[in-house]
Amino acid sequence: MEYKSLNVSAIGEKELINRIINKNNMNSNLSFKNYLGDDAAVLNINTNHLIATSDMQIQSLHFPKQMSHFQMGFKVVTVNVSDIAAMGGEPIGFLLSMAIPKMLKLSDFDEIVDGVIYACNYYNLPLIGGDTNESDEIILSGTALGKVDKNKQLLKSGFKNGDLVAITGKLGLAALGFELLNEFHGTDNDLENLAISKALNPIAKIHEGQILKNFASSATDITDGLSEELYEVFDADHLKHSSNHGIKIYESKLPMGEDFIKLSNKINQNPLKLFFNVGEDFELLFTLDKNLVDDLAKLMDFYVIGEINDLNKIEIVYLNGDVETLSRKGYEHLK
Amino acid sequence: MEYKSLNVSAIGEKELINRIINKNNMNSNLSFKNYLGDDAAVLNINTNHLIATSDMQIQSLHFPKQMSHFQMGFKVVTVNVSDIAAMGGEPIGFLLSMAIPKMLKLSDFDEIVDGVIYACNYYNLPLIGGDTNESDEIILSGTALGKVDKNKQLLKSGFKNGDLVAITGKLGLAALGFELLNEFHGTDNDLENLAISKALNPIAKIHEGQILKNFASSATDITDGLSEELYEVFDADHLKHSSNHGIKIYESKLPMGEDFIKLSNKINQNPLKLFFNVGEDFELLFTLDKNLVDDLAKLMDFYVIGEINDLNKIEIVYLNGDVETLSRKGYEHLK
Repeated sequence: MEYKSLNVSAIGEKELINRIINKNNMNSNLSFKNYLGDDAAVLNINTNHLIATSDMQIQSLHFPKQMSHFQMGFKVVTVNVSDIAAMGGEPIGFLLSMAIPKMLKLSDFDEIVDGVIYACNYYNLPLIGGDTNESDEIILSGTALGKVDKNKQLLKSGFKNGDLVAITGKLGLAALGFELLNEFHGTDNDLENLAISKALNPIAKIHEGQILKNFASSATDITDGLSEELYEVFDADHLKHSSNHGIKIYESKLPMGEDFIKLSNKINQNPLKLFFNVGEDFELLFTLDKNLVDDLAKLMDFYVIGEINDLNKIEIVYLNGDVETLSRKGYEHLK
Repeated sequence: MEYKSLNVSAIGEKELINRIINKNNMNSNLSFKNYLGDDAAVLNINTNHLIATSDMQIQSLHFPKQMSHFQMGFKVVTVNVSDIAAMGGEPIGFLLSMAIPKMLKLSDFDEIVDGVIYACNYYNLPLIGGDTNESDEIILSGTALGKVDKNKQLLKSGFKNGDLVAITGKLGLAALGFELLNEFHGTDNDLENLAISKALNPIAKIHEGQILKNFASSATDITDGLSEELYEVFDADHLKHSSNHGIKIYESKLPMGEDFIKLSNKINQNPLKLFFNVGEDFELLFTLDKNLVDDLAKLMDFYVIGEINDLNKIEIVYLNGDVETLSRKGYEHLK
C-alpha cells in the first residue's frame, strides 16, 4: 500500500514508537543521549532547582480545523514551554504522551511527531520520553522540564505597591485569528494573516522569560485571557502575602492598533473582549520595578499597561476616564 | 442540589483545580511547599541524576468496568511510579493531566483525585502539578519524576553471559483477574479475589527497585507481558552492545501454583499465555550475577526463571524437555 493511504493501525504501537525514536535520533543537535526505549529517561542536570509542568491538548478543544498535524505537534510543545518561560526557566526536556485514532493516517502521525521534534529543536530542549495510546480523537499530553537559577524563578506573586504591569506583546491577535478561521476563505490582509498565524502556530516567549528573570517581580503566561491572568496574579499575591495590593489597567496604554479595532468591528467582535477575555497568544504578563524600565527596554520589547496599587481590586480606566472593576471572564473548560 | 447528584460542569475547571489544591494541601505529610497554582512547579532536588517518565491511562482501554474512580486515580500513579521503580529510582514528584466528561459526577471526580493523592502518599512522592480538560471519557495522563544515584540506574541492558533472569513476583494474576471480571458474580475463592485485586489495584514495586539498584545488572517492569519485556531487554542489549546474548527460560522454574493452573483451565485460559502474554502485574523483570543470589534473597523475595547465554535468541524449555523459541506476543495498542 502507498504510504499516503496507510493508517497507523497498519504498523501498531511498537513500530510507531520506533518511528519516533528514529526521527529523534536523526535530530542530531539535541538527540537525547540515553536509549529512548528504556523505562524512563535519565537526565544529567547541573542544577538543584527543577521546574516541571504538564499541559494536555485535545483536538476538538484546542486545535482549529485548519490546523495542520505538524502545527498540532508544535503547539503541544509551545503550551508547555510557555509555562517554563513564565517561570524564567531554561527548558531541559520534553515528554509526550499521545493518544490517536486507529484510523489516523500514518503520514499525519509522522507530521505530528515532526512538529514536536521541530519545536523541541526550536526551543532547544530534547524529547526524552513518552507514551502512545488509542482514542477517538488526537490527544497530546506534554510535560516540560526546565531549570532555573536559585531564587530567580518568576512566580505569580512577588510584586510591590508601585510596580508597573506589562506584557511582552500585543494581545487579542490569536483570538481574532480563531474568529477569522471560522469563516476564512483566504486573504491578502497582513493583519488577518498575522492573526491566523498566531492562532495556528503560537510561539512561547522563552527568550523573554530568560531576560525577565533578572528584572521582573512576577510573571505568568497569558493563556486563558488577560483578565483571568490578572485575577490569578491578584489571587496568588493575596493568598501568599494577605496584602491589599490592587491592579489598575489603562485602556490608553493597551497596544491595540487602529487596524486591529477596525478588523474586530468588521467581524462583529468587541476588540476589548478579544484583548482581555480569550488568551492563546502566549505572551507574558509581568510586573516590574519602575526604575528598571529603561534597562529592560534595551533588551526586549514590552508594553506597560498599568500599575500595582493598594486598592485591593482590579480596575480598568477607560479612554473617557470612566473607572470600572475589571470583569473576570476567561476561557474555562468544563463549564 | 445534593453533592451526590452534582456534575463537574456545575462548578467548572477553576473550582475543580481548587479542589485538587485543597485536597493536596490537607495531605500534610507530603504537601508540596510551592504554590500549586503557579505556572509550573519548582522542585529543590539534591541530585543531578533526574528520572522522568510519562504514561497515559484511558478509561475504555485501561480501566475495567468494575474499577472504582479511586482505583483509577491510584492506577495512574502506579503505572508511572512502576517505571521509576524499574530504573532503581526514588520518586520525587508527580504531575497529573486529566480530561473528564462534562457530565462526570463531582463525587467521582473527587474520588479520582483522592486515589491520586492516596497513591502519592503510598509511594511517598508529592503531587506537584497538572492540567484539567474535557473529553468524552476519563483520560489520566501522568508524569513521574525521580532521582537515582550516579551510575546506579537500572537500564534494560547491562547484563552478561551467565547472569540469572528473575522476577519479583508471580505473573498472570492480573491477567486472570481481567478474565474473571468479564463474568464475575462474587467469589469466596482466595486466588480469585487476589487475581481481581491485582487487576483493579496494582501496586508498583518501588521498594524492590530500591534494593535491586545495588544488585541487578538490568531491570524493567512487566506491563506488556513477560514475553514482550524479554524481547525488549534482548533488543536493548543488542542495540547497545551488538552482543550474541540470548535468554533461556525454564517452565519448571515459573512460579505457577496448581491452583493458578486449575483456575486458568476452569475459565478456558492457557495458564502459560496468561503468564507470558498479558502483563499488568507491575512486577519487575531483572538480571543478576549468580554470585549475588544469596545476598539478595536476604533482602527480598524473587523467583529465578532462567539465565543469560550466548545463543542469540530467546528460548523456553518446557517441562517435557522440548525447547522452543519464545513467541513475542504482548499487549499492543493501535493494532
